[in-house]
Amino acid sequence: MDQKQLQECHERIKPFIHNTPVLTSRLIDQMVGASVFFKCENFQRMGAFKMRGAANAIMQLPKALQQKGVVTHSSGNFAQALSLAAQSLGVKAFIVMPKNAPQVKKNAVKGYGGIVIECESTLEAREKEAKKIEEEQGATFIHPSNDDAVILGQGTACMELLEKHSDLDYVFSPVGGGGLIAGTALAVHYFGNSCKVIGGEPLEADDAYRSLKSGVIETNITANTVADGLRTHLGDRNFPIIQRYVDHITRVTEDEIVTAMQILWERLKIVCEPSSAVAFAATLKEKELLEDKKIGIIISGGNVDVNRLPFSSLDS
Amino acid sequence: MDQKQLQECHERIKPFIHNTPVLTSRLIDQMVGASVFFKCENFQRMGAFKMRGAANAIMQLPKALQQKGVVTHSSGNFAQALSLAAQSLGVKAFIVMPKNAPQVKKNAVKGYGGIVIECESTLEAREKEAKKIEEEQGATFIHPSNDDAVILGQGTACMELLEKHSDLDYVFSPVGGGGLIAGTALAVHYFGNSCKVIGGEPLEADDAYRSLKSGVIETNITANTVADGLRTHLGDRNFPIIQRYVDHITRVTEDEIVTAMQILWERLKIVCEPSSAVAFAATLKEKELLEDKKIGIIISGGNVDVNRLPFSSLDS
Repeated sequence: MDQKQLQECHERIKPFIHNTPVLTSRLIDQMVGASVFFKCENFQRMGAFKMRGAANAIMQLPKALQQKGVVTHSSGNFAQALSLAAQSLGVKAFIVMPKNAPQVKKNAVKGYGGIVIECESTLEAREKEAKKIEEEQGATFIHPSNDDAVILGQGTACMELLEKHSDLDYVFSPVGGGGLIAGTALAVHYFGNSCKVIGGEPLEADDAYRSLKSGVIETNITANTVADGLRTHLGDRNFPIIQRYVDHITRVTEDEIVTAMQILWERLKIVCEPSSAVAFAATLKEKELLEDKKIGIIISGGNVDVNRLPFSSLDS
Repeated sequence: MDQKQLQECHERIKPFIHNTPVLTSRLIDQMVGASVFFKCENFQRMGAFKMRGAANAIMQLPKALQQKGVVTHSSGNFAQALSLAAQSLGVKAFIVMPKNAPQVKKNAVKGYGGIVIECESTLEAREKEAKKIEEEQGATFIHPSNDDAVILGQGTACMELLEKHSDLDYVFSPVGGGGLIAGTALAVHYFGNSCKVIGGEPLEADDAYRSLKSGVIETNITANTVADGLRTHLGDRNFPIIQRYVDHITRVTEDEIVTAMQILWERLKIVCEPSSAVAFAATLKEKELLEDKKIGIIISGGNVDVNRLPFSSLDS
């Protein structure tokens, strides 16, 4: 994937996304000892960067395929993103979700016009159900992170950040399925200026960290992390990009994630997900490296249930 | 106070404040049935609009008086605002706070360089202590809301909003001590275009609503509202402005405030205070009036303790 593809992707999806604001805080700058620029994808449509990749993936399809719809299995942000992107483009989106997914998530997907298909909660059942819809409807399967068009779309967030602040020394991105950090790494490679990409990953789901060490895609046996968006593992499309263009991955503990999230809420005054806080927690952990530098951080999303916040867990 | 004074005030304080972003949400627009523009003073320095009035009040003083410092009694946002504004201008700020004020608030004031003077928690004790500092130090007393320079400063938030969106039909502001809504009303009068100002006030502390009805400044006997910034009453400097330029005040219940706050957090993805949600709750209540109109809402601040949020109270 080259510079031109990234630029064309950005032009293509522009009418369907927000160029989200970049926020700063003097107090956070003092805390980190660096100038920190937060690219706030929590303000993106449907509340997360995933809108970008979903829009690009659908728009890349030939019209004839678009007419037959798209399908994915997800109970997270990508389910909402694909639904809203499809709705915006007049395309059908079939979303396979486990029966036991929270009703609020099913409603969010339906609210964006997605067609929810329920199945058993195993990965096998989800994949089988998605396959069935591909065959019966002729719908195209879109993977939430391991898809070139999705990776390019996710990279446009960092492109916009670099358009405003071309002289960043480091960009931090959370690492989950690998779509965001791969896209971010491509954007930094083509549009950065001696800029490095560092991933933030929960210690409790450190498959990407281990994958970079071993050179093969590792998985998690358990993933007991508050950062529910980061429990997935890398894929064969994004892993080579991450190997090539990401400087390293910094792992953070659950307490570090919740502390970082609380700082973002109380100081930056934004509602963001634990997954976003992982990138900032990594920044706090790398303070020595970052002294007096200019840092970009991708705040990935803001879809949280405010009745179930993790902050008080710090008191214990 | 005329148009020119408002413009001069804005020029004067510009180097010390943020021109805060204006956020929008398609979902909220659908919910209200109007186009809504949120002026996000939660992103202001020290987390609230009060920075504006504090900066202007200090800068309006002759240099000789500035050197002797300023004094106020407050345990809320104005204490932090006066401290930070004074620090930014190289001026001493004496902040009289009740002994039993939360340590976190005392620390916030100290963090911004304010000199905390503790006293008993009665209004009488606070006023006596402030008077003592005026006499002993020659410091100038600055009232948090009933002061022309403060009112002008607070009005600059709405000025900035109207610079971006000159065709607003209504602007909603919370009503507490009256400084913000009086400043907002002046800004709308001088820079709006057939625009009206509506105040949002908790039913549980509806002194301003009653004052507009009776024509004299009313007070609250009780003020059992989650909107802790709105428990104060109007003063002789801001009341005449409110009488003249505010269309009306809409009262909202505690449940309406918390519901509105939850929508702002979950949909707009911002951390804001209950006081800010009062203005949005009033907007939701006035839906019929606002159909297809363009509405501005002043989000007053974002200083909340995320460990003590009111959302779950809605479940009961």
